[in-house]
Amino acid sequence: MSQNAKSTIDLGPLPELIGYVLRRAQLAVFQDFFAAFAPFEIRPAQFSVLTVIERNPGLTQSQVAGALGIKRTNFVGMLDELERRALAERRQTARDKRSYALYLTADGAALMRKLKPVLKAHESRMVGMLGEDRRDALITLLREIADANGSR
Amino acid sequence: MSQNAKSTIDLGPLPELIGYVLRRAQLAVFQDFFAAFAPFEIRPAQFSVLTVIERNPGLTQSQVAGALGIKRTNFVGMLDELERRALAERRQTARDKRSYALYLTADGAALMRKLKPVLKAHESRMVGMLGEDRRDALITLLREIADANGSR
Repeated sequence: MSQNAKSTIDLGPLPELIGYVLRRAQLAVFQDFFAAFAPFEIRPAQFSVLTVIERNPGLTQSQVAGALGIKRTNFVGMLDELERRALAERRQTARDKRSYALYLTADGAALMRKLKPVLKAHESRMVGMLGEDRRDALITLLREIADANGSR
Repeated sequence: MSQNAKSTIDLGPLPELIGYVLRRAQLAVFQDFFAAFAPFEIRPAQFSVLTVIERNPGLTQSQVAGALGIKRTNFVGMLDELERRALAERRQTARDKRSYALYLTADGAALMRKLKPVLKAHESRMVGMLGEDRRDALITLLREIADANGSR
């Protein structure tokens, strides 16, 4: 839809609502992420999970899901897919037979190395739009929102 | 997960990425929205669609979907549900038998009136966290991101 056609539609209170504008901005940034990471078939949430496993090998599923705010049911499906693609693996822990510790495979670690410049280029495009100072201001405001609501 | 356990997990570059922090903030705000609108079984995207139909009766499906940046396939399912619940309706247009014009039903219009104070209370909580000035700064930054990426 052209800018012109869009501007003739009355969005009412939506463009003034924090949630609506957050969602539009988030989708726009994810669009760039999708395009950049499509050749590797990695979506944003998968990248987050792989990052946390890479940085903290041996965490349990609930620890990783909890740190990222991902619902347990969604997380299980995500991990199944990463395991099927041999990027991450569940290992049974000696202490507790019902819980699994998560690790990257060698392939998963290699993929993460390949993704680093892709991530850097994506983030540069995002920061480039705003400039460093305004990016810092944005991150501060967003963290405040996430922390205030997350702690309820 | 407690704040303490969370802080011992290394999130690597994630907390510095615009997309990641945007997503966490967006989910936090939607969480509040979900809770407030749950008694009416209205999700954020449904609220947006009902708002645009209310403000612009007679638009086509692609106009509404386009204005909100919703994918056509997702939009059809959403509208099916709103129609099943008798909140909105498709009417065939005289000009083009293949395209439908969208309207709220009387029930849909009544629901939107009931939702106004619910929306106001939700938004007050969100603005209350930041204060008016910082809310304005945030909206400006977010719109810039959405517009820059959306125009690609």
